[in-house]
Order: sequence, then C-alpha cells, then structure tokens
Amino acid sequence: MRRTEIATLGEFGLIDHLTKNIEIKNPGTLKGIGDDAAVLSYGNKKTLVTTDLLLEGIHFDLMYVPLKHLGYKSAVVNFSDIYAMNGQPKQITVSLGISKRFSVEDLELFYGGLSLACREYGVDIAGGDTSASLTGLAISITCIGEGEEGKIVYRNGAKETDLICVSGDLGAAFMGLQLLEREKAVYDGKTDFRPDFTGKEYLLERQLKPEARKDIIKALAGEGIIPTSMIDISDGLSSELKHICKQSKAGCHIYEERLPIDYQTAMMAEQFNMNVTTVALNGGEDYELLFTVPLYMHDKVSKIKGVHVIGHITKEGSGLNLETRDGTEIELKAQGWGSIE
Amino acid sequence: MRRTEIATLGEFGLIDHLTKNIEIKNPGTLKGIGDDAAVLSYGNKKTLVTTDLLLEGIHFDLMYVPLKHLGYKSAVVNFSDIYAMNGQPKQITVSLGISKRFSVEDLELFYGGLSLACREYGVDIAGGDTSASLTGLAISITCIGEGEEGKIVYRNGAKETDLICVSGDLGAAFMGLQLLEREKAVYDGKTDFRPDFTGKEYLLERQLKPEARKDIIKALAGEGIIPTSMIDISDGLSSELKHICKQSKAGCHIYEERLPIDYQTAMMAEQFNMNVTTVALNGGEDYELLFTVPLYMHDKVSKIKGVHVIGHITKEGSGLNLETRDGTEIELKAQGWGSIE
Repeated sequence: MRRTEIATLGEFGLIDHLTKNIEIKNPGTLKGIGDDAAVLSYGNKKTLVTTDLLLEGIHFDLMYVPLKHLGYKSAVVNFSDIYAMNGQPKQITVSLGISKRFSVEDLELFYGGLSLACREYGVDIAGGDTSASLTGLAISITCIGEGEEGKIVYRNGAKETDLICVSGDLGAAFMGLQLLEREKAVYDGKTDFRPDFTGKEYLLERQLKPEARKDIIKALAGEGIIPTSMIDISDGLSSELKHICKQSKAGCHIYEERLPIDYQTAMMAEQFNMNVTTVALNGGEDYELLFTVPLYMHDKVSKIKGVHVIGHITKEGSGLNLETRDGTEIELKAQGWGSIE
Repeated sequence: MRRTEIATLGEFGLIDHLTKNIEIKNPGTLKGIGDDAAVLSYGNKKTLVTTDLLLEGIHFDLMYVPLKHLGYKSAVVNFSDIYAMNGQPKQITVSLGISKRFSVEDLELFYGGLSLACREYGVDIAGGDTSASLTGLAISITCIGEGEEGKIVYRNGAKETDLICVSGDLGAAFMGLQLLEREKAVYDGKTDFRPDFTGKEYLLERQLKPEARKDIIKALAGEGIIPTSMIDISDGLSSELKHICKQSKAGCHIYEERLPIDYQTAMMAEQFNMNVTTVALNGGEDYELLFTVPLYMHDKVSKIKGVHVIGHITKEGSGLNLETRDGTEIELKAQGWGSIE
C-alpha cells in the first residue's frame, strides 16, 4: 500500500485532504470545518453535547482493530450517548493526536470509517484538527445533537415499580474482545492455539463495528413512550444500573433468566470457562439502551422488537439486586470495564 | 504534599470528587455533569462549538508548567476560539486521560486552574470524564458558546482595503517558552547557565497564564464594530494571516514597524540572538485577536485601547507581504508553530 508521510502535507494540508469530500447535510450546521469553531443552530430545540477521548493501548489496540472500524466505532459511541438522552446526533468534531507511525493512508482509513458512520446516522462532520503525538493515536470526538423540549430523558427519573428495559443483547462485544485478545496472543507467539472465527462473526461485529440504537429511539417515539430514565450501556449493565439507581435515588430488582444473551455469547463464554451472566452484567461496550418506563406501559414496550423487560425499580435503600435462576437474591456489583483502576 | 492514589476513588468517585463544588451559572446550561451528554439551550441564539486536544510532551511539558496553570490555559485557549467568532463562551466539557503518575491532588490542581478560568470568564463546566492513559496526561476540552444572528465573524469576510488589526502584543509567549526551555536544560544538567527571571515576568505570564481577549470583543461591540473577518493567534501571526487571506480569497500587506512588540520580548530576543520580527510573526500562543475592519472605521478602531492597525488587505493573487523598516517588501512565510511537521 502507498505510504505518504504526513509531513508532506503539513497540518493544514492534512485536514484539508481528510475533509475535502465532506458535505454538510443538516440545515442546523451553519459553518463546518475551517474556522475557529463550528456554528450550529437549533431554533428552539435543546442542544445536546457529549465528548469522548480514546487513547491507543487503553481504549483500542491497533493490533486487531482495523483503522476503518476504529473510525466507525469512535463516531458511533458518541451517537449512542445522544440517543441515550432521547436526542438525535447532528454534528461531530474530531481532534486527532498522531504519532509518526501513521501515514496519510492510515488516516484516510480512519476518516473513511468515521464518514461512513456519519452518513449512516445522518450526522455532519463539522470540525476537526490534528496535532502530533509522541505515543500513538489519541482521538477526541465531540458530538452535538438536538432534543425536544420536555422529551429529553435523564438518568434521574426512574420511579419505584417502573419497568427496567434493555435493547438487543448483552455481553457479545466483550466476548468478541476475548476472541481478539486470544488471536493477538497467538500472533505474539504466547500461545499456539489458533482461533477459528467461524460461527463467531456476531461477536466480532459487536466488538469491531457496534451500532447505536437509533431504531429503538424511533420505535419508542412511534409508541409514544418517553422513558422515565435512560442510559447507554458502555461500561456494563451493572455499572449503568448503578448510575440510574444512584441518580434516581432508587433500588432495582432484575432477573438473571431475563437477561438477553445471544447463543454465540453463551457458547463462547462456555469455551472460555466464563460465567455468561457475569459477562452480560459486566462485559461492557454493548452500546445498547437501558431505560425505565412506568409499569402500565408493559404491553406497549414489550411490543417493540428487540426490547426486553429485565426487572423493575424498587425503593431507595433496597439495593441493586439480581434474582438468580434458582431464586436466590444476590447484590449487583458494578465492576465497570475499562475503568481507571 | 498528600498523595492519594486515584485507584482509591475509582473512575466515578474521581469525577464526583473533582466536580463536587462546581456550580452552574448560565441559564442555558440545563444539565451539566452526570448524564450521557450535557444539555444546553440558547433560544434563538446560534451555538458555537470548539474543541482542543492537548497531549503531554507535545502541547505542554509538566517539567515547567504547573498543573494549575495548565488547567487555566487549557480552558482559556478554548474561550479564545469562541471570542474569535465574536461569540461568548458558556460551557466546557473536559475529558482527561491520566497515567498512574498522577495523584488525586495533581488533578485537583488542574481542576483548580480550570475552575478559576471558568469563574473569571463566566463559563460553566458542563461535563467531564476521566480514563486511564499509558503515557502521561491527555486533555480534551470542548467549549460551547453563543453568538448572535448576523454578528458571528468568520475567517472568510476580509475585503480589499480592509484594515488588518491585532490586539495586545506578539511574541512574548514564545520568548517565555524559550526561557522555560533554558531553565529545563539547566535542570537536566545540559548547561550551567542559570536564568534569572527578574524583569521577564511578563514573558512567563504570557506563556503560563495567557488570557483570552474578552475585553476586545466587548470594546468592539461598544464601538458598534463587527469585524469583516477574525481569528485568534495561536500558531503565529503569519499562519493566521494565511488562513484569513486564503479563506477570504485575498492578499495582505503589513508593516514591520507596526507590529506590536513588548520591550521584554525585544530584550529577550536580543539576548537569545533571535530576530524579534520573526518571533512576533511566527512565535504563536499569543491568543490575541487578528481581525479586519472596513477602511472607513480607522478612527473608531484606533480608539480601542490595545488594538493596533498593522496593515491592509490587498486583492487576490497579490500575495502576503511584509514591508520591512527599510522599505523592502518580503513574502510572509507561515511557519506555524507546534505544527505536525
């Protein structure tokens, strides 16, 4: 593959080069790349802003994450945060710290994935800059979205007896990561076990090309449901439930048997000798939505494809509890994932 | 000094700890820290967004930059970008990547500087997160501001005969950096020259505690002046002039003798055997405003304290020219500073 040193373009040349084919689609994007700041306008809508910093070696490993996938995922995880407020992502700005290891072609791949995600979700790239980095790739993405007055959903509105709902299934992205880590160990010569990815495509896709649940936000709106609280599952179900319960001043009771788990996840956990419930509770990077709705909406919410009712909110002080298949009640521990500890 | 390992607080504990005293001041900040995204509202104003990624070893050196100053400067450079659009900064979000080298107290110092800057400029800290870093400190700050319909100033509006104006003086922050670099060389034992900072306080302050020119934006509004183009000087006057001329499809003619230079800058350049004009043109990190106004506004703009008319815009294709003290015309080269090359 062609390798163009970044120095041949210079900083301004690089951003011009990477963004030359980017078109503005949202009428709210008054000014995109090429000034001190992006200019946005939402009339009387509320503006939502979320930001993410991704560092090589901590949040991603380029040994097994292709740059195009990394670009796609970097954008999608930010969209997911806006959907988790019941909003619509509209613009992103992108800052990159790049070491000399990377060529212009590498960055084209990254921007290719980023642009693809933006096209698929109807989001504009409204700004970007690049600078040098001494130590690998650093990615900072800010996403701006809009929400309607009275329809923005926070983490603090869950009430006793509310139903706890989860979209999609849990733990697959984590098992995908385990697979890739094992592949890396093979590559490093630390083990001679050669993984076969056949029948595990779903796990890899969940890790390498996650999607944000725009469809669920649309379906909820279609049913006239405004959740009482909502969060996206990036650090694992337990950790996110803890956020909702803490901010809503409430407890929760969920059922092990209701946790949505794909059969590939279950098979893989078995192979790796892991407890699949632990994987579903603490795996992280699912980018599914966790939300609560009033009890009387049970039938309405159950109708939505891909939504699972996994338990209910309890009163403050009653703790975060999981009822196991054999009827035992155990306390949920939020182990988090990729946390600072 | 007390040293608390970050692991004792955990990721969520750390952000709670760092942000517990932060109050929301702007009515437009509907929701700050503690949800998937900040929620902002500007009624019918335009929203401005700018973002910056600062990496240790590239954008700052903790050998001579105190963490409190780093926090202050990280915020101020973002405010400067919003002022450069003729807007008012209102909120920031902060993401940190932190290696194990840093303690809770270190981060308190950083947040102390950040909060001080926010208080002084009337900006809210509306969101933040922290994650681990393998290699020192990474800082990503996004600033959201507001601008009035029809009063936002871009880089592309400069017209032939417009006056080119600069606030404050140029090159001091760069000379401050040279001083600090020499101090560091002493510390490393690479030289035994011991620098004396007496009489050089201004240079150090310009490097370590820069201010954004909120006052100039206010003064321009007071005089009823809306610049035809504007940019803040972060990469050096030449580089910023190049941006304005390129985007405005114009050339420029500036006068060496009109470049505003503080006497400490001139003295220090002499000592370091540097050409002070080169320093003023290419030094960078001045965070002064470079803007253009129509010719007929000469008297009005000259009245504003701290504003200097340094030349005028010429027609497209006539190049970027500097007229030296002896009347020679030379072409400006945008060397930039801290660029990727």
